[in-house]
Amino acid sequence: MAITLRQSDADFEKRFAAFLTTKREVSHDVDATVRAIIDDVRDRGDAALIDYTLKFDRADLGTLGIAVTRADIEQAYKDADPETVEALRFARDRIRSHHARQMPKDDRYVDPIGVELGSRWTAVEAVGLYVPGGTASYPSSVLMNAVPAQVAGVERIVIVVPASGGVINPLTLVAADLAGVSEIYRVGGAQAVAALAYGTETIAPVAKIVGPGNAYVAAAKRQVFGTVGIDMIAGPSEVLVVADSDNDPDWLAADLLAQAEHDVSAQSILITDDAAFGKSVEEAVERQIKLLPRAETAAASWRDFGAVILVDDFDAAMPLVNRIAAEHLELAVADPEAMLPKVRNAGAIFIGKHTPEVIGDYVGGSNHVLPTARSARFSSGLTVLDFVKRSSILKLGPDQLRALAPAAIALAKAEGLDAHARSVAIRLNM
Amino acid sequence: MAITLRQSDADFEKRFAAFLTTKREVSHDVDATVRAIIDDVRDRGDAALIDYTLKFDRADLGTLGIAVTRADIEQAYKDADPETVEALRFARDRIRSHHARQMPKDDRYVDPIGVELGSRWTAVEAVGLYVPGGTASYPSSVLMNAVPAQVAGVERIVIVVPASGGVINPLTLVAADLAGVSEIYRVGGAQAVAALAYGTETIAPVAKIVGPGNAYVAAAKRQVFGTVGIDMIAGPSEVLVVADSDNDPDWLAADLLAQAEHDVSAQSILITDDAAFGKSVEEAVERQIKLLPRAETAAASWRDFGAVILVDDFDAAMPLVNRIAAEHLELAVADPEAMLPKVRNAGAIFIGKHTPEVIGDYVGGSNHVLPTARSARFSSGLTVLDFVKRSSILKLGPDQLRALAPAAIALAKAEGLDAHARSVAIRLNM
Repeated sequence: MAITLRQSDADFEKRFAAFLTTKREVSHDVDATVRAIIDDVRDRGDAALIDYTLKFDRADLGTLGIAVTRADIEQAYKDADPETVEALRFARDRIRSHHARQMPKDDRYVDPIGVELGSRWTAVEAVGLYVPGGTASYPSSVLMNAVPAQVAGVERIVIVVPASGGVINPLTLVAADLAGVSEIYRVGGAQAVAALAYGTETIAPVAKIVGPGNAYVAAAKRQVFGTVGIDMIAGPSEVLVVADSDNDPDWLAADLLAQAEHDVSAQSILITDDAAFGKSVEEAVERQIKLLPRAETAAASWRDFGAVILVDDFDAAMPLVNRIAAEHLELAVADPEAMLPKVRNAGAIFIGKHTPEVIGDYVGGSNHVLPTARSARFSSGLTVLDFVKRSSILKLGPDQLRALAPAAIALAKAEGLDAHARSVAIRLNM
Repeated sequence: MAITLRQSDADFEKRFAAFLTTKREVSHDVDATVRAIIDDVRDRGDAALIDYTLKFDRADLGTLGIAVTRADIEQAYKDADPETVEALRFARDRIRSHHARQMPKDDRYVDPIGVELGSRWTAVEAVGLYVPGGTASYPSSVLMNAVPAQVAGVERIVIVVPASGGVINPLTLVAADLAGVSEIYRVGGAQAVAALAYGTETIAPVAKIVGPGNAYVAAAKRQVFGTVGIDMIAGPSEVLVVADSDNDPDWLAADLLAQAEHDVSAQSILITDDAAFGKSVEEAVERQIKLLPRAETAAASWRDFGAVILVDDFDAAMPLVNRIAAEHLELAVADPEAMLPKVRNAGAIFIGKHTPEVIGDYVGGSNHVLPTARSARFSSGLTVLDFVKRSSILKLGPDQLRALAPAAIALAKAEGLDAHARSVAIRLNM
């Protein structure tokens, strides 16, 4: 049973604040282990990768090879279900079309005193994408990470994926190939992150590493940050459904459970203005849980972190929506477009009753790599912007330098930076 | 004496690679100390801030007050040199005009099958800006951090600044006021970062923390990351000047020294195709160093990290330029516009002989918070984008859901996520 919070209760604010700060993940301190692995890969390169992979993934890369070959990829296409391959291709095309609109434009202009200013965007040269192994190896995530990099113009898109027992999910290889990935290596864990950051004989280093992973991968990403760029560290997923009583409880229960089945730490929240309707959704959740192959995971998530929040009206709900700052927000109300402008913090917004969040996971076209654990207050989902960087441009002639010099020199001197002042003054014989 | 690297030498690649990976900073492990301070501020709030400030900054906030008042700001205007205040206002206006062009636009469109997609940008609600105390307290940096936040529409811009001995540089307060900062607190160090992240009785928490600081501040920012957003961790500054012999050696020497005077860990690099000209610049550096109030700092930086790189021609220089990925890049060559498209990695590019980097530090209009230590390979200088975040939008009707359902269901089933498949199928009675 999820908890119920009623906005009209006297202790609501206290309980809501506690609910917001509930930790859903245990953080393991693996920093020392990870540091040793990274140092070893820097020292011994491929040999270290081979040793760790034998130990952790029970795969002999000495025989299998570190790099996945073109023949391996062709075999993966043969092993994969053709309907799924077609669905991946369909998803790839939709993700590509949407992300193409995100490419920032260069800007160059002359201001009123003749100074030229500008922004110039260029793609990151090489990006590494970590793909988890085993059950967490989602081909859809390969598309969601690799397609924006490809759209951005990244030349080298490199995948690392652990081959537990020597095996990689063929759909991972197919998704990688469809998304224009240029290199795939059979390594995982902190050792894979180290190889991407520092390079080995086989793996050339990249400039940025993205993609989800376990505690070791997350710690390794934090440790190599600075040497390379990293994306956000993803936490467990969450959905917030805002719904009036004019909804089918079964539809919304299905949406809440789609989130809950991910992980025992996932979180599903319903906000409604109708207590009886909230009850019906809860009953539908309980009924549907039993039908799921992942019933145990979904039940634990719903029991430990699920919530039904009863509000007086939807205007009163909006501050709560913005404090929760959900990764996924469904607006299943009569006039969702009127509610939309009041949403300040959300990773992705799903509008209306026919837009289940799951469409965004696969084929909507928008990205499913989104800010979790309230970080939508300050960050965004993955976009093409994560794979480009900006150089600012400044260009002055003698007249412009003369016009700007007095203020620059005054500020440099006020900051005690005489060489700064001199670098301007010397050009004007000042 | 800076080192000289000659591209035509047999061991150039080896020496250049070593040069690139030279660490310019000692990293101090202050994590445990910082963790204790953060925990204490979370526990004891203002009382902890008062204790640490008495200990580290020798200032009694019990008497002075934690918050800077309007009267304090008015007094700062009286204490500040009027010409400098005018220069700050001039710089503020130029920074504001340039950054206004960076505001991303919302996007909403309908794709060929009728799916509505979109991007919606909203400002971060509250941002904290760390301002260092003492000699590193640069009013220009207050403008560079606060103006983009104001342009983005951030409602609460909060400054924390240590008041060593009770004193804050009046220009810091003036710059803050000019940039629309809403709250200023007399606290610094890890305790200030903790207060911004978790809040105290006096300081309401923010959603993102930006701005430079010492090792304690940097460690605190890393530790609170996740609870709040943070900007990049800035390293020591660097400039790369690419110059042909048709330049006044004194001008370029002044530019190299403007960087070197910042910090003994700063780095100044000259790339030229003319050995004799390189020599002249080096001689000019040695001559000018003696004239500087910060001669000792500049000399140490130039001696330990300065470099003159002699190239065969400028085409051969471009791969080196891109591997160095300098924070600041000056193109002082005959045709800088022809060179510009070949630059891949640089934080800011200064075009032509009349654009010293220092103009960008103060009054060019572009931002001086830029990626250091080769991170221009994967990141950008501060922009309005750092103070906004994006929600993606998806909206389907029944027809669109029907069109996308088969692929979504196929992928959900392939990933073993049956509740995902169900959340789509249930709406279509599938």
